[in-house]
Amino acid sequence: MIVYINNEFKLLDDAALSPFDRGFLFADGVYESIRTYNGKLFRYKEHLDRLKRSLKEVKIEFDGFDSIEKNIYELIKKNNIEREALVYLQITRGPAIPRTHHFPNENTYPTLFISVTEFSENLNEQEKGVKVILQEDIRWLRCDIKSTSLLPVILASQKAKEEDAAEAILVRDGVITEGTRTNFFAVRDETIFTAPKSKLILEGITRNVVLEFCKKFGIEYHEEFINKDELKSYNEFFITSTTKEITPVTTIDYWTINQGETGKITKSLQTVFKKVAEDY
Amino acid sequence: MIVYINNEFKLLDDAALSPFDRGFLFADGVYESIRTYNGKLFRYKEHLDRLKRSLKEVKIEFDGFDSIEKNIYELIKKNNIEREALVYLQITRGPAIPRTHHFPNENTYPTLFISVTEFSENLNEQEKGVKVILQEDIRWLRCDIKSTSLLPVILASQKAKEEDAAEAILVRDGVITEGTRTNFFAVRDETIFTAPKSKLILEGITRNVVLEFCKKFGIEYHEEFINKDELKSYNEFFITSTTKEITPVTTIDYWTINQGETGKITKSLQTVFKKVAEDY
Repeated sequence: MIVYINNEFKLLDDAALSPFDRGFLFADGVYESIRTYNGKLFRYKEHLDRLKRSLKEVKIEFDGFDSIEKNIYELIKKNNIEREALVYLQITRGPAIPRTHHFPNENTYPTLFISVTEFSENLNEQEKGVKVILQEDIRWLRCDIKSTSLLPVILASQKAKEEDAAEAILVRDGVITEGTRTNFFAVRDETIFTAPKSKLILEGITRNVVLEFCKKFGIEYHEEFINKDELKSYNEFFITSTTKEITPVTTIDYWTINQGETGKITKSLQTVFKKVAEDY
Repeated sequence: MIVYINNEFKLLDDAALSPFDRGFLFADGVYESIRTYNGKLFRYKEHLDRLKRSLKEVKIEFDGFDSIEKNIYELIKKNNIEREALVYLQITRGPAIPRTHHFPNENTYPTLFISVTEFSENLNEQEKGVKVILQEDIRWLRCDIKSTSLLPVILASQKAKEEDAAEAILVRDGVITEGTRTNFFAVRDETIFTAPKSKLILEGITRNVVLEFCKKFGIEYHEEFINKDELKSYNEFFITSTTKEITPVTTIDYWTINQGETGKITKSLQTVFKKVAEDY
């Protein structure tokens, strides 16, 4: 595997990171995951804008944005990825000695790491739907920043895996915020509900695409928190993300929704999404 | 600088970490800081026990504990540290491809990283006391685990630095939890108060030493949350940590306590601590 690290393409074995990198010591960094359709980065500008926002919120000064897109395509080529690629991009505050909790001195330069892997979507999940479990949301209170402080997410994801679920949906103070790496949607009477933009959720790119569709096709939607205790008053659920696109949720914990059938609204959104993505 | 990484002593420049280390990608790891007195690791067993507990809580399986102490002393020698040393030790779930939120496959081995630096304590702070600021506690809800998911702590520490404060003291739901890297104590009528052990604070080693002193010398203490709005009903404050020992707090935000003098109880605890440490 060839990766891009600090302005160089390197064989992974030669891509040495300092143990004093603040990304390693403190999770002092942010990231993005982007995929291609037809070999083209999907909604690259939106991902880049979100990356810039995350960096701004944590006050990491990075000025190498201009060459990122070109270098991603170069990296895809160097790794001989012929079909679709999944791109992972991380920027940290960089290596600094001594280890200090406050920001390091001015001679510290951010670390940029990019990797790409062959991506194949899980069509089975998208067709048949997935099981999710509910877990307490114990994350920090700035989930709007796509930071690498992900340990709570790791623990919830592992719990989901152990229960044969595709995702853990997080509940804070009785309301659903989002999944560990997806946004969560519910449908009632042909109206769509999802948690509002706030510090408690990440503004997902696919989430925004879904809301664009709603506007365009006149589907009513509300950005409102979904109460955990009222889940049974909705009749369709789905999750969205770069890698899962629009994936129906057919089981929540021990509750099977609609005999495990994908809902009507979910299906039509999937159809529109596929068309937009294919034409991308 | 020589560091210890994955069973080897290495020059820092040769100590290469994989960018796929889960410590870098996910903050999927835990750490400890330990200092020496008279060249001897202070309360090593307590630090090791806490490390084991952190690892257990995040389900990282590590079995190399037996050689750690010996290797720390070896590392101190190799770095020619003649006076006191500050030891930093981090264990992550290790490098794994592909990047997955759930735990990686069984062939993943934890990364152990140890560094030591010359340590000199800040006697000026301990004598004159420090300013602290109050900040909202936005960390995750498992602060009892000493994890590297530290971005919220970085941001609060930086804020403290910008306001010429030595520490940010964190407030959640109106009560004081702890500092970003210290425990917080208040004294009223010769009785000591500090936040109770719970998922909201780290059980500091120095915190426990202070409570041991209280027991031994018959000082009354309560492990109770301190209400932010009742701070002015206390007459002494101090913070504790491995590197700060017992440091008086003389200013909280814009409030100068006791004309900036160190309180009586704080001073006597400092005296006892110094004696215990010197005899260590």
